[in-house]
Amino acid sequence: MKVNKISPLAPAAFPLLPEVKGVRLATVAAGIRYSGCDDLMLAAFDPGTTVAGIFTRSLCSAAPIDWCRYALEHSGGRVRALICNTGNANAFTGAAGYAVTQQTAESVAAALNAKPEEVLVASTGVIAEPLDVNRIRAALPDLVAGLSKPLPQVWEAAAMAIGTTDTFPKGAARTVKDGNIRIAGFAKGSGMIAPDMATMLAFVFTDMALNAETARTFLAAAVKKSFNRITVDSDTSTSDMALLFSTGEALEIEATRSAETTAADEATRKTRQGNNELHADAFKEALDGVTLDLAHQIVRDGEGATKFVAITVGGATNDQAAEIIARAIADSPLVKTALAAEDANWGRIVAAVGKAGQQADRDRLAIWIGDEQCAEAGMVKPGYSEKRATVHLQGSDVEIKVDVGVGSGEATVWTCDLTHAYIDINAGYRS
Amino acid sequence: MKVNKISPLAPAAFPLLPEVKGVRLATVAAGIRYSGCDDLMLAAFDPGTTVAGIFTRSLCSAAPIDWCRYALEHSGGRVRALICNTGNANAFTGAAGYAVTQQTAESVAAALNAKPEEVLVASTGVIAEPLDVNRIRAALPDLVAGLSKPLPQVWEAAAMAIGTTDTFPKGAARTVKDGNIRIAGFAKGSGMIAPDMATMLAFVFTDMALNAETARTFLAAAVKKSFNRITVDSDTSTSDMALLFSTGEALEIEATRSAETTAADEATRKTRQGNNELHADAFKEALDGVTLDLAHQIVRDGEGATKFVAITVGGATNDQAAEIIARAIADSPLVKTALAAEDANWGRIVAAVGKAGQQADRDRLAIWIGDEQCAEAGMVKPGYSEKRATVHLQGSDVEIKVDVGVGSGEATVWTCDLTHAYIDINAGYRS
Repeated sequence: MKVNKISPLAPAAFPLLPEVKGVRLATVAAGIRYSGCDDLMLAAFDPGTTVAGIFTRSLCSAAPIDWCRYALEHSGGRVRALICNTGNANAFTGAAGYAVTQQTAESVAAALNAKPEEVLVASTGVIAEPLDVNRIRAALPDLVAGLSKPLPQVWEAAAMAIGTTDTFPKGAARTVKDGNIRIAGFAKGSGMIAPDMATMLAFVFTDMALNAETARTFLAAAVKKSFNRITVDSDTSTSDMALLFSTGEALEIEATRSAETTAADEATRKTRQGNNELHADAFKEALDGVTLDLAHQIVRDGEGATKFVAITVGGATNDQAAEIIARAIADSPLVKTALAAEDANWGRIVAAVGKAGQQADRDRLAIWIGDEQCAEAGMVKPGYSEKRATVHLQGSDVEIKVDVGVGSGEATVWTCDLTHAYIDINAGYRS
Repeated sequence: MKVNKISPLAPAAFPLLPEVKGVRLATVAAGIRYSGCDDLMLAAFDPGTTVAGIFTRSLCSAAPIDWCRYALEHSGGRVRALICNTGNANAFTGAAGYAVTQQTAESVAAALNAKPEEVLVASTGVIAEPLDVNRIRAALPDLVAGLSKPLPQVWEAAAMAIGTTDTFPKGAARTVKDGNIRIAGFAKGSGMIAPDMATMLAFVFTDMALNAETARTFLAAAVKKSFNRITVDSDTSTSDMALLFSTGEALEIEATRSAETTAADEATRKTRQGNNELHADAFKEALDGVTLDLAHQIVRDGEGATKFVAITVGGATNDQAAEIIARAIADSPLVKTALAAEDANWGRIVAAVGKAGQQADRDRLAIWIGDEQCAEAGMVKPGYSEKRATVHLQGSDVEIKVDVGVGSGEATVWTCDLTHAYIDINAGYRS
């Protein structure tokens, strides 16, 4: 992670993340791009760990995305390692780029006595430049040696190592069942953040026992409500992924991983399933909490952001329509520049609703900035105080609510403002 | 028009626009918003003039849009005047706002001995503030008196009077049939410019005889290839319109306006139609030229623009898919900031293609910056010279070509770069 000026919206400190049994992490400076900074991260998992993944919908996906899709399909959802480099996305690098990804997986597999398809690969950084596999290979011995460190000491370094234009490392954790089941994760992302998995990597680890299919269901639901509800600049990356690793080593929970339970008798299996079902709702809630926390941190690190903005649209024909309208507001450069200027120019919100292409009744439209209602029944609300709205906009956390007056669909999207710093960062990223 | 620093992409001078028989123009400072500048423009037309209009698709359309739709429907396509104010869009102003528009039309109609529905109204400026009809009424006598000036002396003032954040007035003309048929027009727009009629007003005048239906067909075709192919910031306004006025007074062309020809015998009517059909193709081409010229000027006045950028996508499944991909590239803040920095970071173009949601073959993708081919077959082209690409980007007119390798659909979209000045302009527009 190349440390720019830390976002004014950053949390005070990286959170304390717990032990997650069966997970080991290590980082190293492999000299792939940013000299002096750790740019290679390895996560190693005990045998029997399962994984679920959600990947970018970009049609120009990077080589690691293709590899991970292949690996997940051929490993039966089992995983032994994840390796992630920054500085080079290995995207748009053709067959040679895919070979580098495969060779990376093979090298890590050899070092950890695993199969190549049990090694996932993630990359982030510049596009269309060749990635040198030898830098990764040369760094592997140190990386593997680093796995011996106690996990709680490595979380922050791991979160740092996967960052690019991030200005702070992003971590989050929740526990279930009195702390006996743990979920912890970290993420990177600050630009090219948009719907459907933007330049964003999120790795979440739990000692809950989940088979790959259940993990995928839980992760998909969590991603839908978190990473897919944030937008910094409407741009989508070639390299994004969210992964959920499940070691199943939580003390009081027994594994139900299918391959391990084939030998168990029917009664035992039912008991184990019962235990898991008992905790499923609590686990899902905790997982949602971790992904939403990480997603919010990504917005708080939005390139150049000075405002964390929650945009809630209600009264739409359905939740999906509400989300589209909320996103139209969140992605509008005119809305975002007005937010940067702390200017209660809510006419731009009206314009964004109008262009969203979803049903809305102009003459029933209502708009709030914080608690201050600006508009009702399609015009300015009598007694509206621009001063009160402006005071709200002067804070670092902004809430905008819009009711489009046609139904009961609702959705919230999180975004940030558009400032000069966004242009500074992105006009100079490669140099 | 509040004159900001003139765009570096502005043409050297406002073009000489010709006489268009049957059209008179006048402007006045009505004090609606910018003190000292003309902010009210009146166009008056001889009886028998027809009009066609294309309007914003915004669901939160402004009162003047609603009025114009009503007027076109009830006037049978006949028109006697157009009045346009700047400084206040009369948008999101409820029933009171609509009443102001109607009263404006009634006042102008009374002054010109016309029917209210023969008067079109356009407004542009801030949203959600009440517009005072009395300012318009008070200015009307001066405005009507101003109609006596020779048209060629008023074009530029009229183009100036409809501008808001524009930094130069925009005009264009073409002639057909050795100059005997004239088309001239002017437009405003520099921000909130996006697909499907953004904050953009375009008024085009011809002495060609066109019935309202034919005019609409020609105008719709011209708009599709010009105003709907430009984007500054992907934002769409509540107030946009393109209007084509046809007086039918060109010396050598006889009118075919339906109401006037009811009395003519069949043979005469056929001759007249034949004359018009003879010129239809040439007229359409000239009209396309005027609208494309105006559209390009709007992009050249894009808020904060320092580059005029043509993005052509080929090899798509069809023309519409090509347009969607071209627009995804044109609207990408990451592409636009790279262009501002003259940085040949074409990986961002790859990312934009990937997110467009239209079929593209990553492994057949080819990209050119100017004449320099960056990518072929899904990776960097051997021998690609970043230096040559950068030299092209250092010019003020930039061409980007992308072939997505799946078909023969093609489209060009015009846009500009995203600079600090865009934020300066939009963070301070209301203050």
